Amino acid sequence: MKLSNRITNITGGGSDGWDVFYRARQMKDAGQPVLELTIGEHDIRTHPDILHAMHKAAMGGHTGYAMVPGTDALRDTVAQRIADRTGVPTTRDNIMITSGGQAALFASHHAVCDEGDRALYIDPYYATYPGTIRGVGAIPVPIQTRPEDNFQPQPDVIAAVAKGAKSLLINSPNNPTGVIYNRDTLDGIATVCRENDLWLISDEVYDTQIWDGTHISPRALPDMADRTLVIGSLSKSHAMTGSRIGWVCGPAEVVEGLINLSTHTTYGVPGYIQDAATFALNQGPQVETEVGAPFQHRRALTISALAGQNVVRAVPIQGAMYAMLDIRATGLSGEAFSNALLDAEMIATMPGESFGQAAAGHIRVAMTIDDDAYTDALSRLVAFAKTCT
Amino acid sequence: MKLSNRITNITGGGSDGWDVFYRARQMKDAGQPVLELTIGEHDIRTHPDILHAMHKAAMGGHTGYAMVPGTDALRDTVAQRIADRTGVPTTRDNIMITSGGQAALFASHHAVCDEGDRALYIDPYYATYPGTIRGVGAIPVPIQTRPEDNFQPQPDVIAAVAKGAKSLLINSPNNPTGVIYNRDTLDGIATVCRENDLWLISDEVYDTQIWDGTHISPRALPDMADRTLVIGSLSKSHAMTGSRIGWVCGPAEVVEGLINLSTHTTYGVPGYIQDAATFALNQGPQVETEVGAPFQHRRALTISALAGQNVVRAVPIQGAMYAMLDIRATGLSGEAFSNALLDAEMIATMPGESFGQAAAGHIRVAMTIDDDAYTDALSRLVAFAKTCT
Repeated sequence: MKLSNRITNITGGGSDGWDVFYRARQMKDAGQPVLELTIGEHDIRTHPDILHAMHKAAMGGHTGYAMVPGTDALRDTVAQRIADRTGVPTTRDNIMITSGGQAALFASHHAVCDEGDRALYIDPYYATYPGTIRGVGAIPVPIQTRPEDNFQPQPDVIAAVAKGAKSLLINSPNNPTGVIYNRDTLDGIATVCRENDLWLISDEVYDTQIWDGTHISPRALPDMADRTLVIGSLSKSHAMTGSRIGWVCGPAEVVEGLINLSTHTTYGVPGYIQDAATFALNQGPQVETEVGAPFQHRRALTISALAGQNVVRAVPIQGAMYAMLDIRATGLSGEAFSNALLDAEMIATMPGESFGQAAAGHIRVAMTIDDDAYTDALSRLVAFAKTCT
Repeated sequence: MKLSNRITNITGGGSDGWDVFYRARQMKDAGQPVLELTIGEHDIRTHPDILHAMHKAAMGGHTGYAMVPGTDALRDTVAQRIADRTGVPTTRDNIMITSGGQAALFASHHAVCDEGDRALYIDPYYATYPGTIRGVGAIPVPIQTRPEDNFQPQPDVIAAVAKGAKSLLINSPNNPTGVIYNRDTLDGIATVCRENDLWLISDEVYDTQIWDGTHISPRALPDMADRTLVIGSLSKSHAMTGSRIGWVCGPAEVVEGLINLSTHTTYGVPGYIQDAATFALNQGPQVETEVGAPFQHRRALTISALAGQNVVRAVPIQGAMYAMLDIRATGLSGEAFSNALLDAEMIATMPGESFGQAAAGHIRVAMTIDDDAYTDALSRLVAFAKTCT
């Protein structure tokens, strides 16, 4: 029996560079003391206050079908938060609640791309991006960035392939590089979108983790609100990864389409999770600062650990929970280095190549283990790199 | 800015027959004492024991990313339940956990239909079916059933349009008709699927609510396990509608594709909800009997209320939580009758036409209000129908 071409091709075939991740998991499951610096998951759990709010909502009877677009309370809370932070007028009609940022990415591409349409995205990229585009039947077109630009996208490179494309997906603060797109970059991207009539899908799920510079939401740039879909989530900001709760913010007519889509995909999101999310957002920015603080601290630890040598160099860590390390001085690929480091030191990292071609010769380190272990791991990583030269 | 054709067309355009539902909601919101016999939601909430299990899992730390295919525990529990009830060997590799039955329907069609493929479904139908098919870019092809067959599908009618189609979606016990497909019907359907190389997508979310006859899962019929995807859910069986937790059961190679899809759509389902679902299923069938009992009782009340007159006749209520009432003797369409009943008696029902053309001249009554109010509503409904003749 034949499956659809679309689902068969969703992963794109070939190695995805995640072999080292799975190998580390197997070693760990077999009892070996592997240090995992691989995935973007906090080393804390969701705060008990948020979980109590969820339980209260569930016990209070919010266990039936919730409104498909999201509860009024959560949509209003998200809209107000976005309006406050960006200055762009935003109401509940601009907000569609989704099963996490990933569902928001899928829904957004579904809403703007038809079968065979070209959808642009920036390389290096979060691992699901090209599969999400293939999942809606569109054609993923990567746009390379360069280490020498600190992985800031170059608008002229985007413009060169933008003609006839439907959408451009960007992510700032960026996973995997930790870069925050600066104003020039975003102005240039906005110009390319306007001149080529592109939808801009802006994944801003790390927007509460800013360590250097300023986060600018491109929806706030001139004439961009009508062509921008912003992806948001409580996964990273509130350590609610497993709760799968996020949103799309965009023009009301797009949200209407997204509601129709959600009716036919998930039929909404659990009401008690939405109540927990509303509670979490209403705790204010202090909670978000606390959730992000360990990564900001480990960013400083990273800089210290890499001082005084040139074999391992960090891409400037401007935001998010990752350090992208340039290990080209070892002469190894990111994949070879990650594998060798796992074998030699039982430290698991992600090869840059698992996030596309642009980050070849790099490894991504998730700053998601406790400070002492993290410092020790980085110290051993640097020592190991020196043995490779 | 243009949206995708696929999302723009997802609802199919035109009236969907749900106007009376929304009008009733508006009347109720305005304070009028409307009795809602419209949607398939229990008049009980999720059992507190299940919610306590969920809270315990969340407080115990199951708040991070869950495994995308579902937890091993839930997949194993679902697999064992299906194996026990159908006799078909089933393991976790046959099970993909989804955000409710609706997500399972979307994923199943995504997995087997490409853009432009024809996907068959039985009319009358659950409201989301054609939109779900359009949502994956396929072409929905309704297959009419007839009141004189008690809405049992006729295999020769299916066969007449099956050539070249990719899939057939069936639903037994059926929403909206309450019919359970009998063995002859299912044998005939299986033959059509085998002869035309169709995938069979079998929505069995009401399989714990059997009032007359026997539920047969077509996956258990000869040579059908390799071409059947079964949709399951805890929404109806455990009054967990709002928790959005369900599954697809099918061949392992399909499940592998569905895992890839889920990675790019929802990135899994909250772990604490999966733990609650595992707890619920492990309570055994007694819980399911208790959740279904009110509908079985109201089925008897329905039969009593309709005795001794011929203006309103019930399609035999074999399963699920609905009574499909034939009101053709009034000379009105289902839509006209539902609207007139709402105006005259403040009783809200669903026109048969909101579930397709096959149920024209019928109304669907959800048996989802308490017994006394239900009996009173039916009595007034019958009296009103008599005034229409």
